[in-house]
Amino acid sequence: MRVGVLGASGYTGAELARLLLRHPLVQIELLTAERGAGHDVRDVFPQFSPFQLPRLRAVENIEWGSVALDLAFCALPHGTTQKVIQALLTTAPKTRVVDLSADFRLSDPAAYARWYGHEHYAPQLQGEAVYGLTEIYRDEIKQARLVANPGCYTTCAQLPLIPLLCAKAIDPDEIVIDAKSGMTGAGRGVKQEMLFAEVAEGIHAYGVGHHRHMAELDQEFSKAAGRGVIVTFTPHLMPMSRGILSTIYVRGIGTSPERLHAILSETYAHEPFVHLLPFAEMPQTRHVRGSNLTFIGVAKDRLPGRAVIGAALDNLVKGASGQAIQNMNLMLGFPETTGLEQIALFP
Amino acid sequence: MRVGVLGASGYTGAELARLLLRHPLVQIELLTAERGAGHDVRDVFPQFSPFQLPRLRAVENIEWGSVALDLAFCALPHGTTQKVIQALLTTAPKTRVVDLSADFRLSDPAAYARWYGHEHYAPQLQGEAVYGLTEIYRDEIKQARLVANPGCYTTCAQLPLIPLLCAKAIDPDEIVIDAKSGMTGAGRGVKQEMLFAEVAEGIHAYGVGHHRHMAELDQEFSKAAGRGVIVTFTPHLMPMSRGILSTIYVRGIGTSPERLHAILSETYAHEPFVHLLPFAEMPQTRHVRGSNLTFIGVAKDRLPGRAVIGAALDNLVKGASGQAIQNMNLMLGFPETTGLEQIALFP
Amino acid sequence: MRVGVLGASGYTGAELARLLLRHPLVQIELLTAERGAGHDVRDVFPQFSPFQLPRLRAVENIEWGSVALDLAFCALPHGTTQKVIQALLTTAPKTRVVDLSADFRLSDPAAYARWYGHEHYAPQLQGEAVYGLTEIYRDEIKQARLVANPGCYTTCAQLPLIPLLCAKAIDPDEIVIDAKSGMTGAGRGVKQEMLFAEVAEGIHAYGVGHHRHMAELDQEFSKAAGRGVIVTFTPHLMPMSRGILSTIYVRGIGTSPERLHAILSETYAHEPFVHLLPFAEMPQTRHVRGSNLTFIGVAKDRLPGRAVIGAALDNLVKGASGQAIQNMNLMLGFPETTGLEQIALFP
Amino acid sequence: MRVGVLGASGYTGAELARLLLRHPLVQIELLTAERGAGHDVRDVFPQFSPFQLPRLRAVENIEWGSVALDLAFCALPHGTTQKVIQALLTTAPKTRVVDLSADFRLSDPAAYARWYGHEHYAPQLQGEAVYGLTEIYRDEIKQARLVANPGCYTTCAQLPLIPLLCAKAIDPDEIVIDAKSGMTGAGRGVKQEMLFAEVAEGIHAYGVGHHRHMAELDQEFSKAAGRGVIVTFTPHLMPMSRGILSTIYVRGIGTSPERLHAILSETYAHEPFVHLLPFAEMPQTRHVRGSNLTFIGVAKDRLPGRAVIGAALDNLVKGASGQAIQNMNLMLGFPETTGLEQIALFP
Repeated sequence: MRVGVLGASGYTGAELARLLLRHPLVQIELLTAERGAGHDVRDVFPQFSPFQLPRLRAVENIEWGSVALDLAFCALPHGTTQKVIQALLTTAPKTRVVDLSADFRLSDPAAYARWYGHEHYAPQLQGEAVYGLTEIYRDEIKQARLVANPGCYTTCAQLPLIPLLCAKAIDPDEIVIDAKSGMTGAGRGVKQEMLFAEVAEGIHAYGVGHHRHMAELDQEFSKAAGRGVIVTFTPHLMPMSRGILSTIYVRGIGTSPERLHAILSETYAHEPFVHLLPFAEMPQTRHVRGSNLTFIGVAKDRLPGRAVIGAALDNLVKGASGQAIQNMNLMLGFPETTGLEQIALFP
Repeated sequence: MRVGVLGASGYTGAELARLLLRHPLVQIELLTAERGAGHDVRDVFPQFSPFQLPRLRAVENIEWGSVALDLAFCALPHGTTQKVIQALLTTAPKTRVVDLSADFRLSDPAAYARWYGHEHYAPQLQGEAVYGLTEIYRDEIKQARLVANPGCYTTCAQLPLIPLLCAKAIDPDEIVIDAKSGMTGAGRGVKQEMLFAEVAEGIHAYGVGHHRHMAELDQEFSKAAGRGVIVTFTPHLMPMSRGILSTIYVRGIGTSPERLHAILSETYAHEPFVHLLPFAEMPQTRHVRGSNLTFIGVAKDRLPGRAVIGAALDNLVKGASGQAIQNMNLMLGFPETTGLEQIALFP
Repeated sequence: MRVGVLGASGYTGAELARLLLRHPLVQIELLTAERGAGHDVRDVFPQFSPFQLPRLRAVENIEWGSVALDLAFCALPHGTTQKVIQALLTTAPKTRVVDLSADFRLSDPAAYARWYGHEHYAPQLQGEAVYGLTEIYRDEIKQARLVANPGCYTTCAQLPLIPLLCAKAIDPDEIVIDAKSGMTGAGRGVKQEMLFAEVAEGIHAYGVGHHRHMAELDQEFSKAAGRGVIVTFTPHLMPMSRGILSTIYVRGIGTSPERLHAILSETYAHEPFVHLLPFAEMPQTRHVRGSNLTFIGVAKDRLPGRAVIGAALDNLVKGASGQAIQNMNLMLGFPETTGLEQIALFP
Repeated sequence: MRVGVLGASGYTGAELARLLLRHPLVQIELLTAERGAGHDVRDVFPQFSPFQLPRLRAVENIEWGSVALDLAFCALPHGTTQKVIQALLTTAPKTRVVDLSADFRLSDPAAYARWYGHEHYAPQLQGEAVYGLTEIYRDEIKQARLVANPGCYTTCAQLPLIPLLCAKAIDPDEIVIDAKSGMTGAGRGVKQEMLFAEVAEGIHAYGVGHHRHMAELDQEFSKAAGRGVIVTFTPHLMPMSRGILSTIYVRGIGTSPERLHAILSETYAHEPFVHLLPFAEMPQTRHVRGSNLTFIGVAKDRLPGRAVIGAALDNLVKGASGQAIQNMNLMLGFPETTGLEQIALFP
């Protein structure tokens, strides 16, 4: 099968290339990059120097019909994304798309306009898009033409919380998500606050009360709970390259922390990429680095009825490119784990 | 004045030496170290190689009467501490002591026994000791012979929360403290989980529901609130050497986040070592590294009435040795900021 | 084929497990660990929590005949190694062994005694062992029963230098190797100088003039040059987990830096795991992390005739466990790259 | 005395502010910053939030006569520097200047033109400027109106090598300097290769054979040796914020490594900021972080007559702003160590 990566000079683009190069059932036929167009991939990511990859092209020069992709991964910036995907699907309607941006994640046009400050440029595609949290929407994803791959923070919060909300086991009004992310979560954009010397030896919260991933959390948690849910969510940036840890504080509704653990255990017993630790063990981001796994732990708080839940994933793999390939596998009829069996690189 | 540091081969001991060497009103007369006894300080901490410091001695060989310290800093392990301080104060009753261990922080003998699994070895000193959170207990500290310097996590949580609890501005039953610490907070003990390669590129929670600093939090928060308070507290370890960030989730009782900010602003307006950031700004640990400052920020959450509070300090300075010297300054009648005016080392 | 890993609780042991779990032609039948015996692998390396692996056993309890390994990887400490391998090969003479320690790397008994301070415990095996620098000794390795896998520093210095010495293109008396290693190169032994807070934010040289890897360098460089060669070699430790960079200073004998590049280009043109960068480009350790690749660069110095050569590899992969599996592939008749095709994890 | 910092939004500017705020004999009267003009310092460096500092101004709006500085520190980019300093000294000829850029370091106009690709814009000032390596040019600096503060790499190489070259104790034709720098050495300019995720977990050489600090090395080493000297110099960037380690390979001319150590010992016996370690001990950058100290070590290589020399300093202190203040102290007649007595922040 022929696949392409639009936006290959960013971190999620490179991670797609890393995984797709070793995927036995697809061939990378197209790589685009805004600034690197005309260059070899090795000029923007030297780790690919020994490997055969197509030269980087400018996305605006692609004739989607003649390139004839079976599936395109879109890792483009917000805004551009909507226009490129619309053009692509108009010209090459049989190509399937996994979009890694936030542009198609919100199904409600009003919510989109509220969070992004303008009407969606491709509202009919917005309606068509399937939210790509694989473990929850597996069946819809198999049939989808356009999958909106979830955000990294949201994947890391939704995997532990959606089953508990569905089971009405926790109070939806008292959920606190304290998330810690590595720096690749902020992308490869060149900003002063992302320089090594600004980031090393420290940690800080940002976007308190208004981070855009909240919109996704609201949408999916409300769907799971069958009522409106608004959570407290605080992201932090810290000096590591990859990884997200969500420390989640919940109050059981007539359920013990042990029962919450049991619900997650039942939900994820047969999932290849979600691993529940024994009760009271907490996950570490370093133990999933480079893999498509999410590790989840549940522990008892001192306050009766309250539990602390930890979830750890690699923001570039299960939080982005790995889950995108997991979705591709479903969309193209491959076994779901194909090309995603890397074991974490620790230490 | 003549001061000594008991336990100079650990990180808080070295930090005391760094600050005391440049303190204009004291002279370091004694340094002890269990394993390094007989060695130069430079053998355990090469950064002191150019400076004149007493040779390390074994604490059990010290004759407290003849060494005649005006003040001793005790940075010894749990347990040993109680015995050494009792011996010291028996032999040299005029020496004052700032203890950096947890041994004298709990004033209630029953609480001590519950958290530490045995009766206190020096119960009368336990009764005498003053809790050394300087900004709160300044007057008592001035008169004290034995000050129990607070823990790093507790200082970082108590400074923002005690004024709010005293003002009955927040619900004492819904406080979540998510704390992130650098590795020196875990001491210099040689354990596998503290090796560089185990710690780099990751973050994890530990001690969920049972970290010993909870005992101090309970004691001081209950005192502030005038009723029993039990908080949710989760510490994390992350790849930086110094620094603690507390991200604290609170619900105002008929108070807005702006009002919480105002209460802290009034409380700390004239404090030299507590700095409140403008409303909605969040602190970063790197901006206080190496200084005795605590930076505090308050921001509005999306949920009505809820606020997110951030507090950042250097665990070895305001969280340990700096606050110990701040207390020494009060105990010996020096200006409180003497020797503590270093500005943060950033980047 | 049945393989075992002796010493699975160290970093090279874990790296063997990571790679062997996904190797399509072998099955891990045995894992031993001194301190972890009786435990699950997940207790010492939580990243393996989701995977099926044999429980850790004590090496002294293994009956080599009945476990019937086709090949054993030995990642045990110096000294122990010789005894274990001798016992293993006596009892199970058809088992092949790749030893990752330094115990069988020196073929000269006198050199061994000089560097290690005692006679070799298994001198006949010392004579039998083949030095496992795959690209240089490929044919001998295919026939070997016991392969002595090279050290990480030595692999990183020998791959660029042996072809140049063989070609008599550089002066053997003026070679300076300045090597920088990540912390896993120092193993998982619990020592104070390897704690995170001791290692972060700094770099230092160690073992100047007497590091044991020099013995291997002497042996192989002398063989290549056809005369005695002693190089200047200074290793450094720095705050990263994986990776070695060798910056090598050489003087061409009537050869330009461009000619040195050409010699390496010819030597490694068809090697799957040695990649020569374009002239004047220098390698970065991060671009090979997690892969079995070595990147080599050659640049011109300002001084006529002098060149600067850079070589980068992952000390746990090409510098240890990856090369061990590359050797296993040869010894068991598999394609050499089987199970070793991971692309570097960057960022 | 009234001082100003031109270019206060970069790292050396911030380091000047950190040190000058606590200098007892000067007052910061002026801070300029290109992009931050009109803002508070806290907007570009939040660590200064609690302190009183002048608002940032645009350098082109300053009337040098009326601001009446006794001394100006110039931390501006290459090129701009020459124009600003010329304007300043024309309008306010009594102001003294310490320039932290490279613009006035080369005394030879031809060398300047060769390395920088254009004629110097202020050739008469170039002639007047004194090279600010304090320990070597102390007397000239006391009289100077314009001091060209040395580069960080050059300070770290010149302090150990100049005494040895002056003593004709080493071969000037066989000097190899392998330098490793933290990221602040590359400044605060916003470039992709300086992002955290590009830099973490790796090391690489750059500028092989053509780094501009070579020009300074040539000039000063030739002066010391009394003949032309060209050294091999390779800088590396690594994941730490501060610090430079120079590992220097030399060949004694009829001198043993012990003799080289003795020469340095005699030279620096009474220097407050240069500390020679005992023979065979190697320095670590972390042990000088935040201080104005340089640690130097000398060890014997295996090859007869050859020695390995290590030198470590903090590139922002002794490598830039600290040495600038050391020079200011001399120029304004203060004791040389005033305001520079900070002890290293380790860990």
